Amino acid sequence: MRVVLIRGVCAALRSSFPVFPRRCVRAGGAHSRLVLRAASATSSTGTRAKLTTGKFEKLSPEEEEEEADSDFSVREVVQSTKEAVVTLQKNNPATQPSLAILQLGEDDSVLEINKKMAGKMGLNVTQICLGKDCTEDEILEELLKLNDDPRVHGVYLHLPPAALTNRVLNSLKPEKDDSLEGKTVLLVGGESPFRLVLQCLIERRGMVTAKSHWDSKSLEREQLTEHRYIFLHRAVGSLVLSSLHSLFSFIVRQNVVRSCTRWLQEQQYKPWRLRSLKLQPLTPVPSDLQISRAQTAKPVNHLAEEIGLLPEELEVYGRSKAKVRLSLLERLNSQPDGKYVLVAGVTPTPLGEGKSTVTIGLVQALSAHLNLNSFACLRQPSQGPTFGIKGGAAGGGYAQVIPMEEFNLHLTGDIHAITAANNLVAAAIDARMLHEATQSDKALFSRLVPSVNGVRRFSPIQISRLRRLGIIKSDPSSLSPEEVNSFVRLDLDPEKITWHRVVDTNDRFLRKITIGQASTEKGLTRETGFDIAVASEIMAILALADSMEDMKSRLGRMVVGTSRSGTPVTAEDLGVSGALAVLMKDAIKPTLMQTLEGTPVFVHAGPFANIAHGNSSVLADKLALKLVGEDGFVVTEAGFGADIGMEKFFNIKCRASGLRPNAVVLVATIRALKMHGGGPSVSAGAPLPTEYISENLNLVSGGCQSNLKKQIQNAQQFGVPVVVAINVFRTDTPAEIDLVCQLAKECGAFDAVPCHHWMQGGRGAVELAQAVKEATSKPSYFQFLYDLQMPIVEKIRTIAKRIYGADDIDVSAEAQRKIDYYHEQGYSTLPICMAKTHLSLSHLPERKGAPTGFVLPIRDVRASVGAGFIYPLVGTMSTMPGLPTRACFYDIDIDPITEEISGLF
Amino acid sequence: MRVVLIRGVCAALRSSFPVFPRRCVRAGGAHSRLVLRAASATSSTGTRAKLTTGKFEKLSPEEEEEEADSDFSVREVVQSTKEAVVTLQKNNPATQPSLAILQLGEDDSVLEINKKMAGKMGLNVTQICLGKDCTEDEILEELLKLNDDPRVHGVYLHLPPAALTNRVLNSLKPEKDDSLEGKTVLLVGGESPFRLVLQCLIERRGMVTAKSHWDSKSLEREQLTEHRYIFLHRAVGSLVLSSLHSLFSFIVRQNVVRSCTRWLQEQQYKPWRLRSLKLQPLTPVPSDLQISRAQTAKPVNHLAEEIGLLPEELEVYGRSKAKVRLSLLERLNSQPDGKYVLVAGVTPTPLGEGKSTVTIGLVQALSAHLNLNSFACLRQPSQGPTFGIKGGAAGGGYAQVIPMEEFNLHLTGDIHAITAANNLVAAAIDARMLHEATQSDKALFSRLVPSVNGVRRFSPIQISRLRRLGIIKSDPSSLSPEEVNSFVRLDLDPEKITWHRVVDTNDRFLRKITIGQASTEKGLTRETGFDIAVASEIMAILALADSMEDMKSRLGRMVVGTSRSGTPVTAEDLGVSGALAVLMKDAIKPTLMQTLEGTPVFVHAGPFANIAHGNSSVLADKLALKLVGEDGFVVTEAGFGADIGMEKFFNIKCRASGLRPNAVVLVATIRALKMHGGGPSVSAGAPLPTEYISENLNLVSGGCQSNLKKQIQNAQQFGVPVVVAINVFRTDTPAEIDLVCQLAKECGAFDAVPCHHWMQGGRGAVELAQAVKEATSKPSYFQFLYDLQMPIVEKIRTIAKRIYGADDIDVSAEAQRKIDYYHEQGYSTLPICMAKTHLSLSHLPERKGAPTGFVLPIRDVRASVGAGFIYPLVGTMSTMPGLPTRACFYDIDIDPITEEISGLF
Repeated sequence: MRVVLIRGVCAALRSSFPVFPRRCVRAGGAHSRLVLRAASATSSTGTRAKLTTGKFEKLSPEEEEEEADSDFSVREVVQSTKEAVVTLQKNNPATQPSLAILQLGEDDSVLEINKKMAGKMGLNVTQICLGKDCTEDEILEELLKLNDDPRVHGVYLHLPPAALTNRVLNSLKPEKDDSLEGKTVLLVGGESPFRLVLQCLIERRGMVTAKSHWDSKSLEREQLTEHRYIFLHRAVGSLVLSSLHSLFSFIVRQNVVRSCTRWLQEQQYKPWRLRSLKLQPLTPVPSDLQISRAQTAKPVNHLAEEIGLLPEELEVYGRSKAKVRLSLLERLNSQPDGKYVLVAGVTPTPLGEGKSTVTIGLVQALSAHLNLNSFACLRQPSQGPTFGIKGGAAGGGYAQVIPMEEFNLHLTGDIHAITAANNLVAAAIDARMLHEATQSDKALFSRLVPSVNGVRRFSPIQISRLRRLGIIKSDPSSLSPEEVNSFVRLDLDPEKITWHRVVDTNDRFLRKITIGQASTEKGLTRETGFDIAVASEIMAILALADSMEDMKSRLGRMVVGTSRSGTPVTAEDLGVSGALAVLMKDAIKPTLMQTLEGTPVFVHAGPFANIAHGNSSVLADKLALKLVGEDGFVVTEAGFGADIGMEKFFNIKCRASGLRPNAVVLVATIRALKMHGGGPSVSAGAPLPTEYISENLNLVSGGCQSNLKKQIQNAQQFGVPVVVAINVFRTDTPAEIDLVCQLAKECGAFDAVPCHHWMQGGRGAVELAQAVKEATSKPSYFQFLYDLQMPIVEKIRTIAKRIYGADDIDVSAEAQRKIDYYHEQGYSTLPICMAKTHLSLSHLPERKGAPTGFVLPIRDVRASVGAGFIYPLVGTMSTMPGLPTRACFYDIDIDPITEEISGLF
Repeated sequence: MRVVLIRGVCAALRSSFPVFPRRCVRAGGAHSRLVLRAASATSSTGTRAKLTTGKFEKLSPEEEEEEADSDFSVREVVQSTKEAVVTLQKNNPATQPSLAILQLGEDDSVLEINKKMAGKMGLNVTQICLGKDCTEDEILEELLKLNDDPRVHGVYLHLPPAALTNRVLNSLKPEKDDSLEGKTVLLVGGESPFRLVLQCLIERRGMVTAKSHWDSKSLEREQLTEHRYIFLHRAVGSLVLSSLHSLFSFIVRQNVVRSCTRWLQEQQYKPWRLRSLKLQPLTPVPSDLQISRAQTAKPVNHLAEEIGLLPEELEVYGRSKAKVRLSLLERLNSQPDGKYVLVAGVTPTPLGEGKSTVTIGLVQALSAHLNLNSFACLRQPSQGPTFGIKGGAAGGGYAQVIPMEEFNLHLTGDIHAITAANNLVAAAIDARMLHEATQSDKALFSRLVPSVNGVRRFSPIQISRLRRLGIIKSDPSSLSPEEVNSFVRLDLDPEKITWHRVVDTNDRFLRKITIGQASTEKGLTRETGFDIAVASEIMAILALADSMEDMKSRLGRMVVGTSRSGTPVTAEDLGVSGALAVLMKDAIKPTLMQTLEGTPVFVHAGPFANIAHGNSSVLADKLALKLVGEDGFVVTEAGFGADIGMEKFFNIKCRASGLRPNAVVLVATIRALKMHGGGPSVSAGAPLPTEYISENLNLVSGGCQSNLKKQIQNAQQFGVPVVVAINVFRTDTPAEIDLVCQLAKECGAFDAVPCHHWMQGGRGAVELAQAVKEATSKPSYFQFLYDLQMPIVEKIRTIAKRIYGADDIDVSAEAQRKIDYYHEQGYSTLPICMAKTHLSLSHLPERKGAPTGFVLPIRDVRASVGAGFIYPLVGTMSTMPGLPTRACFYDIDIDPITEEISGLF
């Protein structure tokens, strides 16, 4: 609602109607007037009024006095607008309120006046002049561009009535529409000749008038909002008016400032007005898929609007998923970040202890129950295990991401993009080896740098390679034969190619293969293998990149193997890094989804937690921290136990992002604690021993004093407060839960609380949410565990001793050779990414609790140079799962009519 | 605009204002009245009127007479609504106009009355009763469901004013909103006590009134549409009114019927109101990527709305792509199809002759220049060649699909879904062989049919397998050891596995590989290979399926190999067919994009044209034929020359779809015709010989008399008229073009015209569009080339002799053995899909023109049982392309700041 008050009734009205805005203007120039004289006019209701017309006149002293008596003047509009612009720009130097005027033809004196007025107010005016004979379609095309242009805050359509068709008027975004034609004006005030004149003048502007008495009871808020403009006029007074044209011009300009201000206000932190989805949890808890299907997800664009995303920042994928553009980071640049919370866990049983459900339950509690802005940032699961043994990964019970089938299948294609990019590198490697093996230097050079229309030119990526080779030349013909040789020959050593192909399928027969056996490949066979797609270095890069530029340069730095002379060969050397960035251009944008209770979730990246860092993306966390704003929460999850996932989160991910965590939620289950306290072994598929389903305080206590304690201390080494979240199962007893709470606090936890999100949704995690809120309100003294300048071996030793509790490390000869090589190549300042079992703090899965007195063997060391870490191998890591005899796919089906999916869990 | 006429001014008004709708109602019952007596009321403008109140009275004879003089009555509203419902349902038996009433609490006598009235009119009423204490969020949730429910045509919010918040009112879709509160009513007519009473009563309903004189000049169309309701009243007459409450109830109900009718009208054919994008072609023509980028695509949801798609039928993927739901086929079931046009070509040079650009240029001309609804249905290109040698495939010059980078990369993930599905089958094959090799029957059985909570049960897919084995049992424990053996052992012969893995990358080193070499696979190595993803049988299935159900059953029928005893083993035997359908659930929906001129395009499926049928999807064509409607055009394209692509389009695709083509556009270039007329050979990369860049009428004439003539005759064998489209190059001379036009018509073409779409866009193909329109207006006498009941060899022979011009075929022993085997297995009634070179009508690429006197060798025969065809191999077909020494990827790059892609072409 925009209100224009005419002739001093605003004060009275404001007291009666509190909804009236404070800033009002009135028709009535301070020192001049348009004297309306002698002519007659007919209003649309057929009433005739005698009017004065025509020219501006200086006011007589009496009139001047009468004017002074008025509340507002046009000058005030100019002045107040100007002030608003100045204030706006002081706080937001980069912002310039801009009005676009769309007109036909090029010369128009009125527009000159407009521009002059705009200048006085400090507005930018862009005049878009279309040909006089342009079509409706051409006007629409311009309008749609203006709609989408965030730099334009208002649009004034200076078009002849014939061009102002419904299609044109309806195409312009309401919030940018500063035109007057077709708008309704409510004239509030008693019947009088003055009103008739007003009505008549307004209707001549192509507006519709409606009338109402100002003190009527029925002039209620709902009704007022129907009108785009409301004129309040006093039923008395002279016919002295400023030119309504001038007034309207001012209004248009003021509207620009307002929409610019509103736009800026939208950038600021405010509590979301989130429509949460109600849960009515059933007992017993139905299957995950049934729960997911019983809830109707909000359309993702509604969710996006609720959390303050602009439509142009969203790329919707179907109903329930959307990618969010990185431009958001720029827009919210000056917004303070929210609180950053990591969910980690004690050393898990092979069944998993529910970090994902805690993460989701916690944000459901924060957003839907405590009304605090909060975001969960989750990893995208590999599709392979979905059809193999694991099933879905969207949380569980009443703490899930919905729709869970969308979460588990394809999502927005990021893993497919990674597969395509990874395998393009692989194809380029083998093709290059074939071409080098079968062509002379000269032939290679003339093909790699072909003559196009008689001109030979290096591509930018080839120039980069020449620079790395120390050849500072740009004319291909100027290279010496030696330079040609070193340029055209990567001379890859087939034995030392580390790059694997990937598929997002559990395909164990691809673990080790021989390729190139067709006759067309001229006998250049070699042994290699496929990994599952999420094990690709490109996935680790996606998770650590903090911009498109950063991702592109990391992709270029990826080392795929070594030359026969021992030089690392990179993706950029292969000429493929630009293409990789193109393949990944959409994957870099995080995917927005929602929890069962309608609160926002980012799903983005899901690297392995052993050979990679096991954390979701830096970019999703950054976007989420801006979106929740100062008082909000971002909850993210690290794979495996805290000794691995959390340690990598701090030392690798936080180093890459520059973000600092405010709290760690450490997930524990009574089951896992009993195992660490000495309970019998737990394995998938086998029934749980009775120790795990009946009360046993001894075992619980043992687990708390060993593994839980050590993991709490691990977090504390980084200076971050720990809240222990007990993921409660049906068989857990109150005494067991109380015991954990008590012991956890004794071991140094800030707090320890039981959570029932699996059975109750967010309501079951309110206590946790409150504890987390409390913990993050304290200052955090985050510090890294090691300095990057330390030698590689020392960094490994620090992690092994301080986090795992090892006495020392034992570096194999092979590992030492690699370490020396990486040092030589300048990789020694990279952080360390330990590839160790997650089932024990030590390297031996069967050693539960908090083992001591062991020496950690470092079998081998590898590097992901593009992702930016060195990964020592402690034992053998499988990078390609297999399918069990009865794989999940036996039960997965779709009803061809209803399209309902069954068998996912 | 909804108009309610009160008291007989409608006739007069209709003559003055032609925009007034014909159906109007007035307030004034025919035989009763609400006598408004004695009470006084105040309208919102503060005017007081003395009113009569209270009860219905029988009219006096004089009053009755006065009433009879009125134009309309409430009874008429009931009657006309009822009639409208009857008419509606007669034409659309499945449609039931439905009103949903959303209320708080459960008992309300008014609603009882409402329901009774609705019943009289033949409306469905659904009452949704929320708890009296329900929250705004709960109301919103219900509203959003009602918004999305296509069975609800109107919603009446029977809520207390406090619940009618702006959020609630704004959430309801305007076209479903039948509430009155907050609406504006324009009272048209002179000032009178009658008007005051009306105003007062209307305002009491929570509506806002505006007034205008009915003969005012300013009562223009634009202004009227601002008001949701317009009451016209005569300035004279008594105060006799029907209860406005009753009137409003009727209006609500009538609105339901109207929106239902409007909904149905939207289903009917009408010319689209397409906003075409203007082209301003430059000379010389810039690069494809530059042209694509210079044009701003319409948001795809705007395009969808323009062509009559409902929002719920659309799944948007980003800005410029959307999947279209198959439910559309059901909605438009009764709509007649448009004209169906196939674009095929003469036998091409290795450079390609521009079928895609002709297809796109033709629809640009039809839609944007002749204003005829038209759709292009295109194949999705493989991403492999985009980075290898071919570049993009979105058309070229000023006839393109935009944005071309979206078209060429990932699109909506269909090929990625195919890759995932294809490779899941492969992983299942090898894992199954491993499990069978390493487990006893008993172990396999207990794993395949595990005991879950003590109960063993077959999954539906296992029951299907038992049925196929002739075992009609459902209790796992009842199987005999022999039955267990035959159930658990597929006994796949490793030598006879025909299923390949796929990647969407040009990776030649995967053509032949050995898998299973890791120790975990226990020595079960075997030789196999990868194809490019589009060569997967699943792609061929996607293109031929006509529903989810059909796709699922085809996926289940796919034969992956044979058992040692010679039985075909299917995807369903592996237990994987449900999972495949789940992976393909989104891929089955065609993707909507647009041409450079903003006309709609479906991109869907892109199978190989040699080992598969090379045609885009049946579903895209079917959806497009419904969307363009009776007088519209769907233009689809077949891969390779007409002897292959067109023949398969007719004999395979049209057989699968049941669709019948109306015309063939045969694309020819002067270049290709010269080659067929005896010109020197043309090859990619080498400069064109002078014959091709200077006039040579002899060669042109030779090509017309041979290849062009034969291909025209090929189309005519199917009874379909042929329009020859000459894709004009800059070097073609007018004499050459005229000669082709003349000779083509002499050879039997319906017409032959030159096209300049590459340089001019749709404007350059208007002549072609007119010729196609003309050709399709004639009856077509389509017939298949062969009967499916013919023996396999006879079908092959028929194609070879009648389409290729061979003297006979020569079937190898291996091929004959396969044919016999397929016959035995019951596959002999499948159509034939010839895998032959596209560079000649014969099997010898170098034989141009229309070769004769050759015998076509049939080297081998294979079957795609799921897709549903047998493919004889005439020569060796490569199913995995390689990368050249300097692949496209060297030039492909993205600007990390602007995100502009370079190097795609």
